[in-house]
Amino acid sequence: MFESVELEHAIDKARFEEEYPKLRTKFLDAQFDLIESKRFPVILLVAGMEGTGVIDTLTRAQNVLDSRYVETFALDEPTQEEMERPRMWRFWRVLPPKGEMGIYVGSWYTAPLTDRVLGEINEEEFEQQLNTIKRFEAMLAAEGALILKIWFHLSKEDQKKNLKKFEKDDRTKWRIEASPWGGSKRYKQVQRAAEHMMRVTGTDQAPWIPVNAANRYYRSLMAGKTILNAVRTRLDQAQPAEAAAVTAPVSVPDVDQKTLLSTLDLSLKLEKEDYKKQLSHYQDRLNELVWSKKFKKRSLVLVFEGNDAAGKGGSIRRVIEFLDPRRYRVNQFAAPTDEEKAQPYLWRFWRRLPRRGHIAIFDRSWYGRVLVERVEGFCSEADWRRAYSEINDFESELASAGSVVIKFWLAIDKDEQTQRFKAREETGYKRYKITDEDWRNREKWDEYAEAVCDMIDHTGTSEAPWVLVEANDKFYARIKVLETVCEQLEKSL
Amino acid sequence: MFESVELEHAIDKARFEEEYPKLRTKFLDAQFDLIESKRFPVILLVAGMEGTGVIDTLTRAQNVLDSRYVETFALDEPTQEEMERPRMWRFWRVLPPKGEMGIYVGSWYTAPLTDRVLGEINEEEFEQQLNTIKRFEAMLAAEGALILKIWFHLSKEDQKKNLKKFEKDDRTKWRIEASPWGGSKRYKQVQRAAEHMMRVTGTDQAPWIPVNAANRYYRSLMAGKTILNAVRTRLDQAQPAEAAAVTAPVSVPDVDQKTLLSTLDLSLKLEKEDYKKQLSHYQDRLNELVWSKKFKKRSLVLVFEGNDAAGKGGSIRRVIEFLDPRRYRVNQFAAPTDEEKAQPYLWRFWRRLPRRGHIAIFDRSWYGRVLVERVEGFCSEADWRRAYSEINDFESELASAGSVVIKFWLAIDKDEQTQRFKAREETGYKRYKITDEDWRNREKWDEYAEAVCDMIDHTGTSEAPWVLVEANDKFYARIKVLETVCEQLEKSL
Repeated sequence: MFESVELEHAIDKARFEEEYPKLRTKFLDAQFDLIESKRFPVILLVAGMEGTGVIDTLTRAQNVLDSRYVETFALDEPTQEEMERPRMWRFWRVLPPKGEMGIYVGSWYTAPLTDRVLGEINEEEFEQQLNTIKRFEAMLAAEGALILKIWFHLSKEDQKKNLKKFEKDDRTKWRIEASPWGGSKRYKQVQRAAEHMMRVTGTDQAPWIPVNAANRYYRSLMAGKTILNAVRTRLDQAQPAEAAAVTAPVSVPDVDQKTLLSTLDLSLKLEKEDYKKQLSHYQDRLNELVWSKKFKKRSLVLVFEGNDAAGKGGSIRRVIEFLDPRRYRVNQFAAPTDEEKAQPYLWRFWRRLPRRGHIAIFDRSWYGRVLVERVEGFCSEADWRRAYSEINDFESELASAGSVVIKFWLAIDKDEQTQRFKAREETGYKRYKITDEDWRNREKWDEYAEAVCDMIDHTGTSEAPWVLVEANDKFYARIKVLETVCEQLEKSL
Repeated sequence: MFESVELEHAIDKARFEEEYPKLRTKFLDAQFDLIESKRFPVILLVAGMEGTGVIDTLTRAQNVLDSRYVETFALDEPTQEEMERPRMWRFWRVLPPKGEMGIYVGSWYTAPLTDRVLGEINEEEFEQQLNTIKRFEAMLAAEGALILKIWFHLSKEDQKKNLKKFEKDDRTKWRIEASPWGGSKRYKQVQRAAEHMMRVTGTDQAPWIPVNAANRYYRSLMAGKTILNAVRTRLDQAQPAEAAAVTAPVSVPDVDQKTLLSTLDLSLKLEKEDYKKQLSHYQDRLNELVWSKKFKKRSLVLVFEGNDAAGKGGSIRRVIEFLDPRRYRVNQFAAPTDEEKAQPYLWRFWRRLPRRGHIAIFDRSWYGRVLVERVEGFCSEADWRRAYSEINDFESELASAGSVVIKFWLAIDKDEQTQRFKAREETGYKRYKITDEDWRNREKWDEYAEAVCDMIDHTGTSEAPWVLVEANDKFYARIKVLETVCEQLEKSL
């Protein structure tokens, strides 16, 4: 993988000084067009051998570009805030919106690469982490991001030479001391790990670009021109056509008319007396669990989806009624804002993830993608189809970060819905809750039902299970929710 | 993932006997159309819980379909032949050509799943194997295959019931004894591993289809109709348009006009006396290596690519001159035959892989995809771009099976080529070696050069390195080849 890049590459200062100002002008033009168009974000990862002057490149990039629309991140050890959330959370937070650029020195590759070089993870764990990254980048690319990954390369001799130079200069000496891979001592391990990393994660959507970094003039022109070319080409391209990927056209036949929803027993009921007793029992139990020592190291994510008027709000209120309000947050979502539209669809949920010891409740969630967006045609078929595995990856990240994830589908039947809609229209303070849209959605009842069953089958996992709640009777539904939360949480702690 | 499939599903015998003959007729129609069209192969994998009657399904499929065009494979433990080659080799051999169907009970999933269930591999190794499979299936799909994967599911109770039934019946008792997962004892482990398998490898291109297998009428109709629908839909679809996938449009700028080829020192020479001495020295050494005890557990794959008239044939002859002809095979490739065109492009090379202790020499190879097919436009850009990682995966399989893989690019310059072409035209027995096509290829010299550099940068790995050979001087080139073979082989043994 490093054949071409290991050739001796150098240009002289005169040539650099002639070309550099031109490159800079073109870069600013491209950046301006990008900002104007707001079409895609540019995500630029910069990594490389030690001694390649990655830091100088960062400094140079900041000088070249209009710094209002480019952010550079030199991410170091994770903060406490970051350690309490999924590994990728710190990166999710700092992705550039459409039209802007993010440059990352120290990226999602740093930890796996360092761990592998130092032998702290084995080949299989390394590959697993790389595959997770690959899927994450595929999602970003499918959401429109232009992802470019520069690898600054050095031969062993050039590396030794550079490191010696750094060491002699008081202004760069610190770089040697901060060296995570111990300078040229582990040259071979770094090379091997980097080759593997490029093989697994170098894709057409998010390619690795190796650049020989021995000569700083060559390095700057090479990296600069490559990035400029890519941004300019993407700007000049028409919006990419919908990918007509080869898929196996499976449609599951309805042999016996039995679905997850059709087999629910919606007649399940709870008497008021019973309800009251159980309600306070489970609310107390939940409170104990949340205050327990073990929960300090975990967090809880509750997702509520369901038919319109199925009682999501009422159930949520019973869950939180006696909890410490500093411990939980209920998140509701209206139509995405402009800021949210400039980011991947998961972005607005990433921002609401709980720290350790905390609870995040989602009243409607990322499942909008495979429910309303699918049924109403707000996104393409390819988009909602890929969302299943993207969501699984996302929830799997949550689970490995210690979150207990439970997802509820509150189901009522059509008659019950009619009654509730009418009752709402007649009750003053509930009238705002019912709109023409709700009546329109009803007309697509069957399509929604199909989407719900597909959703559960594709995203119900042991890490993040779906729980179907028979919700024609509000008492029954609320207790089932509370009971499930208590039991799952207790089991997981 | 098993939510819908765990519902109680059953239909009665009367309904089955009414619908089954219709399904059978439609299936035969679809199969006939598929054979006529020769458009794609159908690869049907059948797996499931123990006690699901996978075997009955296989028997039924054989009864339903026209058995001339469908092959069923119940692959068991690998044979000696198979164990001496890459893990996937046994499957590569039995893929159906376009227009035909292959049904696999016991597939590439069997070993990883069993190893995981029995705890012989850990989570990370399991995931790594699944990712390898995923990439393999993506390649098959991109080559046009319709891949369907049925998972027959049972609840724990249903499984117990079925296993008991098998045990009582003398005709099915053997199934219990041959049970790899120990019946229902490991139900939970199987379920967890299967869920993970589906999550990682269930894609739009090669979806998993879970089927409740408790009731045999339901099971047969469900599986049958699903497969029929998919085959029929694909048949009715127009040929899929070229996928306009989102790619990062990287074109590496030529900052200093230095490429792998332009920096080769083609003036390197060897005097005849030196040549003769070294030739016999390395030939002897190679012979010793090939007869060594250690080589019995390894194999050697040599790939020769190079400019027309660069002397591939001559170099190969010097490698094999004194080797035992039972130990090696030289493979040359003309334009693909009809049989080969009906298979993935790697297929004709899969068939020529060496057993342990043997040598396979490829005079031109799978690299045709990213060289001549790219430059001449015989395949789409998407096709040759994906080939880089497909080839890396393929060679990585070879390496993990113990093959030593070395790839030579023999380079000459344009003047040397002119001289050799002319000399060939003048030499009687060499005249057949030079055609108009050779002269035409020369006109695309620069495009080929670019393709060669890209190829080396993308597929040169430490597992299967490229060696550039300065071949203007034949003596020098032959010795460099032989020396490299000896040294790499010695280092690897």
